[in-house]
Amino acid sequence: MKPINILIVGAGAIGGFYGALLAKAGATVSVVCRSEFNLIEQSGYSIESRDLGDWRFKPQHVLRHSEDYPEQADYVVLCTKAIDVSENLELIRPAVSNNTAIVFIQNGVETEQAFIDAFPDNEIISGLAFICCNRTGPGQIAHLAYGRLTLGSLTNTISPKAEQLGAFFNAAGIECRITDDIIGARWQKCIWNAPFNPLSVLSGGLATQDILNSQEPLVRGIMQEIAAIASACGHPLPEDIIERNIANTHTMPPYKTSMLLDYEQSRPMETEAILGNAVHAARRDGINCPHLETLYALMKLRELQLAQDPNTD
Amino acid sequence: MKPINILIVGAGAIGGFYGALLAKAGATVSVVCRSEFNLIEQSGYSIESRDLGDWRFKPQHVLRHSEDYPEQADYVVLCTKAIDVSENLELIRPAVSNNTAIVFIQNGVETEQAFIDAFPDNEIISGLAFICCNRTGPGQIAHLAYGRLTLGSLTNTISPKAEQLGAFFNAAGIECRITDDIIGARWQKCIWNAPFNPLSVLSGGLATQDILNSQEPLVRGIMQEIAAIASACGHPLPEDIIERNIANTHTMPPYKTSMLLDYEQSRPMETEAILGNAVHAARRDGINCPHLETLYALMKLRELQLAQDPNTD
Repeated sequence: MKPINILIVGAGAIGGFYGALLAKAGATVSVVCRSEFNLIEQSGYSIESRDLGDWRFKPQHVLRHSEDYPEQADYVVLCTKAIDVSENLELIRPAVSNNTAIVFIQNGVETEQAFIDAFPDNEIISGLAFICCNRTGPGQIAHLAYGRLTLGSLTNTISPKAEQLGAFFNAAGIECRITDDIIGARWQKCIWNAPFNPLSVLSGGLATQDILNSQEPLVRGIMQEIAAIASACGHPLPEDIIERNIANTHTMPPYKTSMLLDYEQSRPMETEAILGNAVHAARRDGINCPHLETLYALMKLRELQLAQDPNTD
Repeated sequence: MKPINILIVGAGAIGGFYGALLAKAGATVSVVCRSEFNLIEQSGYSIESRDLGDWRFKPQHVLRHSEDYPEQADYVVLCTKAIDVSENLELIRPAVSNNTAIVFIQNGVETEQAFIDAFPDNEIISGLAFICCNRTGPGQIAHLAYGRLTLGSLTNTISPKAEQLGAFFNAAGIECRITDDIIGARWQKCIWNAPFNPLSVLSGGLATQDILNSQEPLVRGIMQEIAAIASACGHPLPEDIIERNIANTHTMPPYKTSMLLDYEQSRPMETEAILGNAVHAARRDGINCPHLETLYALMKLRELQLAQDPNTD
């Protein structure tokens, strides 16, 4: 494959893992990582994957800031948590040049416009990861399950740039699907995230199966609201999507959501990206979503309480 | 006043305080108390009240069980938490005779029918307490603020039995109002309890003012649902009740709800009496209450999590 330069920004577990895959497939991959900089610069990443084996990933450049990147980036891949969009935009801006495609692999809905506004002349590729991987130690990443990626250009076409990147992922052994409706794909993922992420936190840490077994009508009510909002936004979801998500969740192993992991580790939660943006879309389009409104307000209260007294929980 | 025999069942802070008031006014008051039995039998209660002074309350009889009560009770006053109705009924049954009026001073809505079914031939008086009092040590009760009682017979009349009991409370210095619509009065109190009790727990412990300042639209949405349910149940609430509750909460001192206190002390919460019964009434009468449904489901999840892992919080 044609050599390509990729800069990963936000090289934690997910960014490090996907960077390691791209490098394995022959791309020239550098990383911006601020925590563990010294260790990564010296030794790179150690990847342990149940499905893909173990390997080391030595980035071409390990950088503290993207402005230190000395190459022309074909792709800048943003893998930070979707917490602060404008901060994220500033993190990548110095490494973005005319021909750079910007890829963001993040949770959430309705996060596109900020990228379009900030980089009107660049191709922007939105990415969704279905993956379970964790940092298990300094520079150590364990890939536990899944890994599938969905990429789609915000031009809503099957773009060559997205296909090229997808080919590297597929070559490395991770299924990467290219879609011409990534916005619809984000709403499809939100069907699951919108109930289970906040309910896992607000319940005090229940696993997804316990939530579903105990309060399936609430889960369905939330999913129906997301489907109504997606439809109003011009992305009607497949008819059976709720049934499929309910059935899949029943057969999943006990699972801690990303929001619950963030909560337990006192990290900021993706409340706005996952829940707030859906609620704001509903308000804009006149869709009634009282379950989501209640969850969103409760998450804001929870965050207020954590800010007041971060040590009580 | 005519001598009357009163048995208080559930003589914690609230039961002990109201018993002490009735004794102060000249009633013959006995108590059933299981915790602290020995201490109360020996020394009685010590009451410290900012508004009413300090005094000791030595019950006529201190009993472990109501079946040990050797008198004919004019009133049996149930002051336990509204957790398990059938257990409460069994607690009082042995002391109830033909002329006994049963008084329950408890939170919640729609708790009446169980009493009517269990004691069809007795007068039943429903009581609401607006009080802030705490147990401060063994046998010690501090009355911090408020204290007002509303009593109403389930016959929906101004009953002589309720008026007689109210006269004792008033004589002791506590305002006691007799109503012919105690069910409506319960829904009025529920307007405040239904939002603030669960939100204080689900937020992780926020004070009522922080909840209101941060999420007033949610609080109003919940209050509107309670008003709609009360109306469907034949007890339309005053037009200005939501505005009055919002305004009062803004001027209250920072306040921890009873449900939050129970939660913090790992005691069972009055989820069913305050929230579940309102939701069940809504379902029965075909009223849509998605905010309440969400809060109720979340409280059930919270309780499930506490049952799974009582030490994590």
